[in-house]
Amino acid sequence: MAQILKGKEVADALVESMKQDVEALKAKGITPTLGIVRVGERDDDISYERGATKRCASVGVGIKNYVLPADATQDALLKVIQEVNNDKSVHGVLLFRPLPKHINDGVIRAALLPSKDIDGITDGSLAGVFANIPLGFPPCTAESCMAILAHYGIEIAGKRVTVVGRSLVIGRPVAMMLMHKNGTVTICHTKTKDLPSVIKEGEIVIVAAGVAESVGAESLRAGQVVIDVGIHMKEGGGMCGDVKFAEAEPIVQAITPVPGGVGAVTTCITIQHVIQAAKAGA
Amino acid sequence: MAQILKGKEVADALVESMKQDVEALKAKGITPTLGIVRVGERDDDISYERGATKRCASVGVGIKNYVLPADATQDALLKVIQEVNNDKSVHGVLLFRPLPKHINDGVIRAALLPSKDIDGITDGSLAGVFANIPLGFPPCTAESCMAILAHYGIEIAGKRVTVVGRSLVIGRPVAMMLMHKNGTVTICHTKTKDLPSVIKEGEIVIVAAGVAESVGAESLRAGQVVIDVGIHMKEGGGMCGDVKFAEAEPIVQAITPVPGGVGAVTTCITIQHVIQAAKAGA
Repeated sequence: MAQILKGKEVADALVESMKQDVEALKAKGITPTLGIVRVGERDDDISYERGATKRCASVGVGIKNYVLPADATQDALLKVIQEVNNDKSVHGVLLFRPLPKHINDGVIRAALLPSKDIDGITDGSLAGVFANIPLGFPPCTAESCMAILAHYGIEIAGKRVTVVGRSLVIGRPVAMMLMHKNGTVTICHTKTKDLPSVIKEGEIVIVAAGVAESVGAESLRAGQVVIDVGIHMKEGGGMCGDVKFAEAEPIVQAITPVPGGVGAVTTCITIQHVIQAAKAGA
Repeated sequence: MAQILKGKEVADALVESMKQDVEALKAKGITPTLGIVRVGERDDDISYERGATKRCASVGVGIKNYVLPADATQDALLKVIQEVNNDKSVHGVLLFRPLPKHINDGVIRAALLPSKDIDGITDGSLAGVFANIPLGFPPCTAESCMAILAHYGIEIAGKRVTVVGRSLVIGRPVAMMLMHKNGTVTICHTKTKDLPSVIKEGEIVIVAAGVAESVGAESLRAGQVVIDVGIHMKEGGGMCGDVKFAEAEPIVQAITPVPGGVGAVTTCITIQHVIQAAKAGA
């Protein structure tokens, strides 16, 4: 029977500490504020926006919404980015992507100040997480994994760590963050040979393969801590992760559930970044 | 008896191909030109400058020297960086570091255009090598390792690769470059437990520990390709690498010597970057 690493427990603790931070900032006359930039009316974006707004309100963080029509020009969006960059009352920016095809994603990302890039999408933030320097912010999902390990007191230093997946939003940044904490990290991907053996080497395993239930008993062993980053809708209803939970749970030492694991922490990290940005600017 | 991966052979091949590139650029009226920025009169810098100047001349690449006194102000150096940034006839910049203590290294690096940063010292170059996007240039030593593997036809895709060392000038960037070529990379460092076992896992091993003759028979096995990045002066005279060459050579499949390995390629990569920068700007 594995220990279940519940995201809600981590999120609750983060919320408590964030509330105190916000109070301290408000005492200085600063309300940490998130700017949400949305182009178009995609259901996913609107639903995420609603959730983030509720979560921000519960912590005392303000929201400013910037909504452009789906056919807005690149220049119009650039103007909004510049406005947010220059607005000292907005501390962090969440920009929904992918952007419409007529807008150049690279141009927009390059325009955003790394100091307000709470979602880790600028080149500055990439350099920051690679070099371990205070420039921008790491992607929120990568930091969620780190927050779960920290909350449950799981030591990283000196451990073998296997990261499955090398994307820029999770695999690569989380690998760097684990290495900065003195883990010995192996990064796996679709071209890795004998993946189950490499996963078995890990004392900590971060699974961000992006393929539903692709890691099972053949890859796992006793004593492992497994963080499952995948979120997939099941055909018959319900959700699952990248790991076959029912197979993994009797084998490993600890594992995050899906839902209720990494995903439950990510919004909190977004808001934490806004507060950190407000502190840095204060 | 291991195959000896000689740097000179790689450098000679690079020089031939660079000569052709330079001819093609000169036919378009462009002389690829390296700007060398030096503060003070440190012997090491002057000696490197002399070598680079000779090597540039042999390939047909121009040089512009910018020399400031050791007590030059930060503003004076910034002015030189701006001058080089704006000078279309200078394609790449080599800045000797460490800078004198009264000059803020971060401020100077931030001022340099990534497109001219042929030595991979800007945040743009760090983001480029991390994200595998065409922004700036990777550090020359990291690319030397890749050039040696490419020259000798050593396949990386699907291989287990161990990188010993996680510095920003070699360990981390070379790990990323090997991952971009589909190697399954493990990054080791001073906090890694049972280092010899982890090194033995690698089919390709990049040793950039920075400690003379710290890797020997206990860490090696048949079939490995070993790239030794270390360069150290021996007490009794002569040079050695991070690997105990005499122990390693009878065991492994292939190994770079020291001297005459990675170090013999690095200057060529610097010049190749100048040519690439000139091509990109042409």
